[in-house]
Parts: sequence; structure tokens; C-alpha cells
Amino acid sequence: MQTFTLDESQLSQEYGIGIGRWEHRPTKQPLPFDAMWCRVPAHGKSAPDEHPEVELAVVVGGTAVFTVEGEEVTARPGTAVLLSPGERHVITAAEEPVCILSVYWLPSAADSGEAG
Amino acid sequence: MQTFTLDESQLSQEYGIGIGRWEHRPTKQPLPFDAMWCRVPAHGKSAPDEHPEVELAVVVGGTAVFTVEGEEVTARPGTAVLLSPGERHVITAAEEPVCILSVYWLPSAADSGEAG
Repeated sequence: MQTFTLDESQLSQEYGIGIGRWEHRPTKQPLPFDAMWCRVPAHGKSAPDEHPEVELAVVVGGTAVFTVEGEEVTARPGTAVLLSPGERHVITAAEEPVCILSVYWLPSAADSGEAG
Repeated sequence: MQTFTLDESQLSQEYGIGIGRWEHRPTKQPLPFDAMWCRVPAHGKSAPDEHPEVELAVVVGGTAVFTVEGEEVTARPGTAVLLSPGERHVITAAEEPVCILSVYWLPSAADSGEAG
């Protein structure tokens, strides 16, 4: 059993938000994805981001608004948002900070995982 | 952009807790893991569970106590717990229900993902 906590992560400022990448810490088991904690300050928003990886953003705190190409989704804890490669996304926080665990992988890795 | 929410999931009773497996719903992108929402009722606990998959349990609501072989970890939203294959685990909820997104995969799938 190994724990990963947002509070104990050193966050760097990227995309206008706080980012704590898990790659800084060895995991007892290899993961089929990369992972990072994200913290959007209250009333803040991330810079637009798009990447070749698929991303699953799991909201663990606050109320986030995800915007992709004019489409808006409000996500509270108990919601996970799946972003396809190349989907340009912005995350906005309401009155309280938004905390997210983001896991992401190149599509080929997922295909290998399914076939294996 | 595709959303997955605990509230909109049909939960079945397994291991003494509510389980909503994502396999019931197609994803726009293949995932390199399986996933399920878990809901432990207030003051409830899961039956002991162990399996060959690696599991990453992301707490999104409530205060969970994970017990593995006598070791106890308290996990609130902002904590993710990585369980190794064969680690027999029990999840206990305190005064409020515990909500978790659990992702899990066979170790070989992760190895394929890393190599690919």
C-alpha cells in the first residue's frame, strides 16, 4: 500500500495552475499512465492546453468548469472527464480551489494494454 | 470530452459496497485500465478483497480508512492509494459515505504500456 497526496506534493506553476507530477516519486508498481495532481486557485483558470495524450481528469475537490471548443461541462467531485488527444481544454475554478488527479497516456499505450 | 459521474452510475452491491463499473459504458478512447466508482455507506466497510490486478483508489469524497495486513491509512479527497497485486484490503467509511474512483489493471498491461 502506497499513498500519493496532493497536500504533500511540491507543486510547480504550469499552465497557470499548480502541477505535481508523480514522476518525481517512484511507484511500487509500474503504472500504465502518467499522473499529476492539479490545483486551480479559486476564480482561476488554466491556460489552454492540448496534447497527444488521452487524459482522464478526476475531480477530487471544488467545482471545475471544463471548456473544450465552446462546450462546457461542470464537474464536481464524483465526476471524471475524458479528454481525447488534441482536444484543447481550459479548466476554470469557481469560488473554491479545484483539485484534480489527472492521468494521461499516449493512445498506443492503451492499445498495447488492451491487446496484452 | 466525455464525462463519467458517480451520481449517474447504476451501482450494484458487491463486497458490501456500491460498485459502478465503467465497462457498462463505451469510452471514446480505449483506457489502459478498467475503472469503477465505489461508494461505501457511512459507518460501512467493504468485505476483504484481494485480486491479481494493481489498483489505484482515488478518494473523491468522505474519509476512508484503508487496511492492509494490519497497516492503516486514512485517505481523504486528495489522496490516492496504490494497492499491489494480492494485497488484501478493506475500506472503512467514517461518519459520511466514502466515494472512490478505482482504476485497476493487470501488471503485464502496465509493463506493455511502459515498453510501447
